[in-house]
Amino acid sequence: MKNKVKVIIAGPRGRMGSEAVHLANNTEHFELVAVVDHKHDGKLLSDLEGFHTITNVPIYSDLEKCLQMVNADVLIDLTTPEFGMKHTKTALDYNVRPVVGTTGFTKSDLAELEQICREKELGCIIAPNFAIGAVLMMKFSQMAAKYFQDVEIIEMHHDQKLDAPSGTAVKTAEMISAVRESKKQGHPNEKETLPGARGADYTGMHIHSVRLPGLVAHQQVLFGSEGQTLTIRHDSYNRGSFMSGVKVAVETVMKINTFVYGLENILE
Amino acid sequence: MKNKVKVIIAGPRGRMGSEAVHLANNTEHFELVAVVDHKHDGKLLSDLEGFHTITNVPIYSDLEKCLQMVNADVLIDLTTPEFGMKHTKTALDYNVRPVVGTTGFTKSDLAELEQICREKELGCIIAPNFAIGAVLMMKFSQMAAKYFQDVEIIEMHHDQKLDAPSGTAVKTAEMISAVRESKKQGHPNEKETLPGARGADYTGMHIHSVRLPGLVAHQQVLFGSEGQTLTIRHDSYNRGSFMSGVKVAVETVMKINTFVYGLENILE
Amino acid sequence: MKNKVKVIIAGPRGRMGSEAVHLANNTEHFELVAVVDHKHDGKLLSDLEGFHTITNVPIYSDLEKCLQMVNADVLIDLTTPEFGMKHTKTALDYNVRPVVGTTGFTKSDLAELEQICREKELGCIIAPNFAIGAVLMMKFSQMAAKYFQDVEIIEMHHDQKLDAPSGTAVKTAEMISAVRESKKQGHPNEKETLPGARGADYTGMHIHSVRLPGLVAHQQVLFGSEGQTLTIRHDSYNRGSFMSGVKVAVETVMKINTFVYGLENILE
Amino acid sequence: MKNKVKVIIAGPRGRMGSEAVHLANNTEHFELVAVVDHKHDGKLLSDLEGFHTITNVPIYSDLEKCLQMVNADVLIDLTTPEFGMKHTKTALDYNVRPVVGTTGFTKSDLAELEQICREKELGCIIAPNFAIGAVLMMKFSQMAAKYFQDVEIIEMHHDQKLDAPSGTAVKTAEMISAVRESKKQGHPNEKETLPGARGADYTGMHIHSVRLPGLVAHQQVLFGSEGQTLTIRHDSYNRGSFMSGVKVAVETVMKINTFVYGLENILE
Repeated sequence: MKNKVKVIIAGPRGRMGSEAVHLANNTEHFELVAVVDHKHDGKLLSDLEGFHTITNVPIYSDLEKCLQMVNADVLIDLTTPEFGMKHTKTALDYNVRPVVGTTGFTKSDLAELEQICREKELGCIIAPNFAIGAVLMMKFSQMAAKYFQDVEIIEMHHDQKLDAPSGTAVKTAEMISAVRESKKQGHPNEKETLPGARGADYTGMHIHSVRLPGLVAHQQVLFGSEGQTLTIRHDSYNRGSFMSGVKVAVETVMKINTFVYGLENILE
Repeated sequence: MKNKVKVIIAGPRGRMGSEAVHLANNTEHFELVAVVDHKHDGKLLSDLEGFHTITNVPIYSDLEKCLQMVNADVLIDLTTPEFGMKHTKTALDYNVRPVVGTTGFTKSDLAELEQICREKELGCIIAPNFAIGAVLMMKFSQMAAKYFQDVEIIEMHHDQKLDAPSGTAVKTAEMISAVRESKKQGHPNEKETLPGARGADYTGMHIHSVRLPGLVAHQQVLFGSEGQTLTIRHDSYNRGSFMSGVKVAVETVMKINTFVYGLENILE
Repeated sequence: MKNKVKVIIAGPRGRMGSEAVHLANNTEHFELVAVVDHKHDGKLLSDLEGFHTITNVPIYSDLEKCLQMVNADVLIDLTTPEFGMKHTKTALDYNVRPVVGTTGFTKSDLAELEQICREKELGCIIAPNFAIGAVLMMKFSQMAAKYFQDVEIIEMHHDQKLDAPSGTAVKTAEMISAVRESKKQGHPNEKETLPGARGADYTGMHIHSVRLPGLVAHQQVLFGSEGQTLTIRHDSYNRGSFMSGVKVAVETVMKINTFVYGLENILE
Repeated sequence: MKNKVKVIIAGPRGRMGSEAVHLANNTEHFELVAVVDHKHDGKLLSDLEGFHTITNVPIYSDLEKCLQMVNADVLIDLTTPEFGMKHTKTALDYNVRPVVGTTGFTKSDLAELEQICREKELGCIIAPNFAIGAVLMMKFSQMAAKYFQDVEIIEMHHDQKLDAPSGTAVKTAEMISAVRESKKQGHPNEKETLPGARGADYTGMHIHSVRLPGLVAHQQVLFGSEGQTLTIRHDSYNRGSFMSGVKVAVETVMKINTFVYGLENILE
């Protein structure tokens, strides 16, 4: 890559945002040119705690003002749902390609953004989940489900998690259901001597939720057919796991001229 | 070991029995001196299908007659519950040490056998499960439960299995319960958005039963505490897994002068 | 599928072949119309041991004669390398689509077959490995390697295996190498205090071969990046694992009009 | 437990020490009565960063002075090797039971401490590794090795680790070697087509070291015999994993009147 990708980050003090700042700063072919933070207009990023060594990066409280002053290629938006749509449209307006990790976009939002991208022939990537390993696990599971009719999902999290199954497990089951016919698995006459043993039923496949102190966020998808099993497993240990997805999204958004929703659609 | 252990096997044509014949024949410090088979009195073992190469081993239809004719150290009984008690007592009567894999012994049977062993100062081992790996898994799980309050069991079997959870999973949970105080695990406010996701509840611990074609018989016991997990897993691929337990039992029964019920009680 | 796929199987008494006979017989939309076996010309399949219940299937000793007499859609060839090429060409000659599991095809063989398929617009699939789970594992590993620079392979087999690493592990490493730049993994200054601890080196990735009695054939491919790992694992328990691949190949060969080498190229 | 165990902690600002402070503060039947820190004599613990909410705990720069002023049951020493021996002896001198996590004790140090404990009939526990899960893994592995002759160790760490195999893997192999006869595993004629594939050799067992970004500290010990495998696995995610071991050691040291080296010797 000859020229560095010039990056603006909105939301630099959030959990994801601060990781993204360090990513942009430490990646050779990226250049962090500005950040947008509504609390610290006019300061430098090096004035903020945790960023003392990152010099020469101005802070703007307003994205539009920032885009008028700074020449950029990509906006990484890791703010909150209320700003996501506005920031995305503003960036496209200034011909800057958005990579957006906030949620809360409506169907009509997505349709509107797709239309803008088509007219301006600009890339734009919106991804509710940047954990590239988790996204690949779901994608591979969907692919494997075409060849293995029987599948069970075991997701494992720390014991402070409130809901079971996890969002990722349900998303995985949905993606698998989209390609396989509903099938009631297990022996037709199987019997639970302790209720719940066989887990949750989702169109005939079974989902099991393990909760233990010590665990972080893990999931395995098990496929079985005669004489063999295929297992796809993702282990997430900390928030750093999202950054490889952000990096791929920034690199990809520079090469495409269309609107993409979901990281799975840019992973080949 | 200077002298070979002289072994009689009752039930040589059964699944376990035929494996035991080959075990006794292939183990250097064992010597197969006779078999008891009610159908083939007076023949030689080499006359029966599957045993053509095992020469010079006489078949008796009756254990007592066999013991009168043949000098032996150990009887391995792998017949059926109806013969188990009778064979065990007959062997002890002839000062031959029994290793018994049949089930169906009542409490008063066990008490009677213990009494005989005490009087005659003879070893005798009765074991409902000879899969040494499974027995160690249960034993280690019980030991670990003293230091880890939180545990979940995942057992995985082929999809032709009728009952869930498996007998081994329930036995493991019982053994853990014997040493830990009942504890409702997971977050107090946790919620199943799909019923059954959190599995079966056994005194507050959770058991999950996975069923897939291709699987054989597998179980993992997961313990968690802050910052760590400990997992004990047994995979059983075929019936050969029982033979290492039979071998250990034969070796052990020669060294002890007491009655033992359950393989876990001879594994140190 | 409206019409059943009419199948001829060459090599019905081999390990793979006999499984394939049962597959064809038990699959609702397949119909076994003949077998080719040079030893039993003129008999019926039900005359052979293991096939007594499969009625009305004639045996031919010669494929050409068989094709003259029997109307078929697909030839499943599971013979030996010396017959593979000849059978494949003969089948195409009679407009029957080949699904071939033998190895030993030269580059010029493959080129010749591709040419014939193009001219006749006929599907033909040649696959050295029909274990669909293993093939997916390799395919997914190659896909994941685009996003994860760091990967290690652990393959685990029974302790009678002579060579390490396994052929599948080396094939997996080759497929990964084809899409990633060579990278020396681990710390630049890492040091083996016991030689061999870090396993074999293949273009900078590491391969570890575990050998234990009890194991059958297993492989896991582990990818790591900051804060996460992604694991793809295949467990093969017995030869039945090949049959799902044969089934997919038969279904696919009916839909395509081209020559395909390698099961990975028909799995989407 | 009727009375709370009164605890002094030496080294409260170290990584382990600060975790231990929070452990002592958050455990109902423990009471933190003082800390020893050579830098902050005369202050209160609540004056130090990270401990603002822990009130009424005095800091002493010298252990002896602390013991003269404060009534205590147990000293938890998490300082450095140079202070370990001196602190242990001083505590015993004041009839306070030591729980010590520093290393560097010589054989004659251990002999001397054992002698003092015998004379004073006081408990004392010195443990180089407080990760209770790791210690149980090693203990169980040693127990299993009596029944499974074949074992391989796979340890997996982040890719910044310099040495391979890990200290825990070598310790595990030593403990296994202590109970099993040396056995060259694998097929006698096995051949590495890529050197190193079969890992490191330790008295005939094999050790494999995996290094990947994302991983923390993990080890599995695999045992195999005919038809089965038994796996014992420990995953360490963060330093909190040591605290359950410290807690057990404090509880145990109050009940024993002897000197113990190694956490494995107090786990039953």
